[in-house]
Amino acid sequence: MPADGDLSLRSLRERVERALHSFLAAQRERIAGMAPPSARLVDLIEAVLTGGGKRLRPLLCCLAFLAAGGTDGPEIVAAAGSLELLHTFAILHDDVMDQAELRRGRPALHRRLAQERREGGHPEDAEVYGVSVAVLAGDLALVLSDAMIAGSGFPKEAVARALRPLEAMRVQAVAGQYLDIHQAGGPSISLEEAAGIARLKTAGYSVAGPVAVGLALAGASGVLRAAIEGYAEDVGEAFSLRDEVLGVFGDPEATGKDAESDLRRGKPTTLIAAAIERAGPEERQVIESRWGNPRSSLEDLEAVRKAVEGCGALAEAEVAVASLADHAVGRLREVGLLEASPGRELAGLAERLK
Amino acid sequence: MPADGDLSLRSLRERVERALHSFLAAQRERIAGMAPPSARLVDLIEAVLTGGGKRLRPLLCCLAFLAAGGTDGPEIVAAAGSLELLHTFAILHDDVMDQAELRRGRPALHRRLAQERREGGHPEDAEVYGVSVAVLAGDLALVLSDAMIAGSGFPKEAVARALRPLEAMRVQAVAGQYLDIHQAGGPSISLEEAAGIARLKTAGYSVAGPVAVGLALAGASGVLRAAIEGYAEDVGEAFSLRDEVLGVFGDPEATGKDAESDLRRGKPTTLIAAAIERAGPEERQVIESRWGNPRSSLEDLEAVRKAVEGCGALAEAEVAVASLADHAVGRLREVGLLEASPGRELAGLAERLK
Repeated sequence: MPADGDLSLRSLRERVERALHSFLAAQRERIAGMAPPSARLVDLIEAVLTGGGKRLRPLLCCLAFLAAGGTDGPEIVAAAGSLELLHTFAILHDDVMDQAELRRGRPALHRRLAQERREGGHPEDAEVYGVSVAVLAGDLALVLSDAMIAGSGFPKEAVARALRPLEAMRVQAVAGQYLDIHQAGGPSISLEEAAGIARLKTAGYSVAGPVAVGLALAGASGVLRAAIEGYAEDVGEAFSLRDEVLGVFGDPEATGKDAESDLRRGKPTTLIAAAIERAGPEERQVIESRWGNPRSSLEDLEAVRKAVEGCGALAEAEVAVASLADHAVGRLREVGLLEASPGRELAGLAERLK
Repeated sequence: MPADGDLSLRSLRERVERALHSFLAAQRERIAGMAPPSARLVDLIEAVLTGGGKRLRPLLCCLAFLAAGGTDGPEIVAAAGSLELLHTFAILHDDVMDQAELRRGRPALHRRLAQERREGGHPEDAEVYGVSVAVLAGDLALVLSDAMIAGSGFPKEAVARALRPLEAMRVQAVAGQYLDIHQAGGPSISLEEAAGIARLKTAGYSVAGPVAVGLALAGASGVLRAAIEGYAEDVGEAFSLRDEVLGVFGDPEATGKDAESDLRRGKPTTLIAAAIERAGPEERQVIESRWGNPRSSLEDLEAVRKAVEGCGALAEAEVAVASLADHAVGRLREVGLLEASPGRELAGLAERLK
């Protein structure tokens, strides 16, 4: 596809989708030839993918690559698609560890597998079976993610350049999840510190990482590279703030997640840290006693929401998101990137966080 | 280290050990700088490594590389060491899925973590915590395995060549474990077929894979390559037969595994398939009613062992192991590899399976 082809998000997303499905079809065949029943794991990965998701990470990777002057073609679409398989690994393992009931509005995979096992006449080990198979499907997604970028068609040197940011994303995904579990046992570091680390993780893994992979594949350098990296830093921070706000105020219909779980688990966020700092004694007492309390009722959590809003922390977060998004778009404008399609699409992604 | 240096198994093993520990020390520091509590995951990987293991896969990889004419140095030791991290990933996840109590003679990591959590005053989520942290430590081991070979110092082209056998090993580890779980729900394929697949997995993942990685790194070709691949095929088959025999007759003190679990779970093996075929009606009835029966008593399982021995299946397996090992050594002799140290050490590994 020529560089002046259709680079709308929708068209890119469809190309990523096709690349993922054709890669997985080939892998299913390969695994079926080696150990027939195990091909089922590929079906499970496919089911998670078709269950939803915005493909944010592949899109950011593609657009950063193209904005930095990379040549459009099947190589970048496949390489970017590999990030969605990495994310599928993270989703599957996180849901098992968080004992999540829902993912993208449906029962999480380990729950569906347990249910299937019970109905298949094995109630005795249904839960363990669900967890085991979901963990294995996640393992395979991680292994295949690596195979997909290695086989994307890029020269070896380009893939080797992408390895460093890619590896950082993988470590961030794992180290970040450990923080969540560790935190649940009572923080040994301050809330602010924990929130900073968690934010670093979301921003790095979901935004800066994919952009860095795209830039590395393009072999980008100089002012163009610096501008796109600056964009990624701002958008990453805005994205994680938006994520924090959705975790407290989001509509479960839209987020596909249980609206209360982050609040009951006491997930460390800069939003909560800011609220505790800004709140008066009464609001602070509400937050500190009910946030992170597994026994909090829906009313208790509604009171936490009111306190976070009442003290001005929500408005402050919204202002910060808007200002970060504007600043990110400014970075692209400065180097003339808004004059072409990939840069404009990057700007659109930033605007949509507002 | 010059090519005529000390290539004894013991010396190679020590070098692999040192490479693993210094790599992990650097990773611990890196992760501590990113998310301090998560450095704990590196400690857990280290604990599994120091808990034991013969480093079979790294040794096979090093020796195949050296026998094929590769130059000795820190590169091959680091690249081979990465296979032990891959194996640590497999061990950690397998133990969680098999709900194993023991590994290398000590409580399995997820058990130790659950115990620690209980003692830390969190009995309510101790089991989930143990499983979650063990899965994450396994995830990190897989991610770091990749980083260790990528950073081993080999030229990019050599690492790229090794990627195909490496990726096959990873898929074999995951697809093979799925077979185990799938099988536990009642076989939809014949025992013989299942055993064949499982054996393919052990042989490929534990022997042929590591040897193929070493050969790829050395850029081996021609008769030398063919001979070492032939060796790996024979030794792989002998190794998995030995593994099957140990699973039924092994001393738990020596194997570090629960002596009964494979029998009670009905792990599909060619040994059991052969026994069922060879056995008279009475012995067959003993095997078919007690093998793969979670309610079998220690006496029941002892009767299964007697039947497997009595029908001649055990002796047949021992003869097959010896003949495969001899054949493997013959392959090395034919091309003159027994005249140098790496080939002689490979031969020694084969002899030790007898």
